[in-house]
Amino acid sequence: MFNHGGGLHLNIQKEFGLRIQQLRKATGKSQEKFALSIDMDRTYLASIEAGKRNPALQNIKKIADGLEISLSDLFRDL
Amino acid sequence: MFNHGGGLHLNIQKEFGLRIQQLRKATGKSQEKFALSIDMDRTYLASIEAGKRNPALQNIKKIADGLEISLSDLFRDL
Repeated sequence: MFNHGGGLHLNIQKEFGLRIQQLRKATGKSQEKFALSIDMDRTYLASIEAGKRNPALQNIKKIADGLEISLSDLFRDL
Repeated sequence: MFNHGGGLHLNIQKEFGLRIQQLRKATGKSQEKFALSIDMDRTYLASIEAGKRNPALQNIKKIADGLEISLSDLFRDL
């Protein structure tokens, strides 16, 4: 998904959300269980996975730690 | 820097800031010039580099694009 010019990178939110969902599903955990495990509100996690949020570094780090992967791996191919 | 328990990951902000500063300096650009090139407020960039901010995905992506590296490379070793 090519982003035309310097506009808001909405596609990075979508791509990041899909990536999180893919990795979270691979752990076999539901949104609810994974959100609980990283002390994050389930609806917030759901909106991140749906590409509707612009999560900050601290929450990105929390998600990576919960998935037990490095931040670098979390962003592989994004 | 080991973070004891689930507390705020302040060290990720510091580590991220140092990483950005290191990569930005390698481009030879001043904070002012780099901030201008990615349409970011210079003082905001300065506070990110100082580890005092919790930048969100969109700004992280802007920084990576400005440094002409992937998000995965930006987070290498963090």
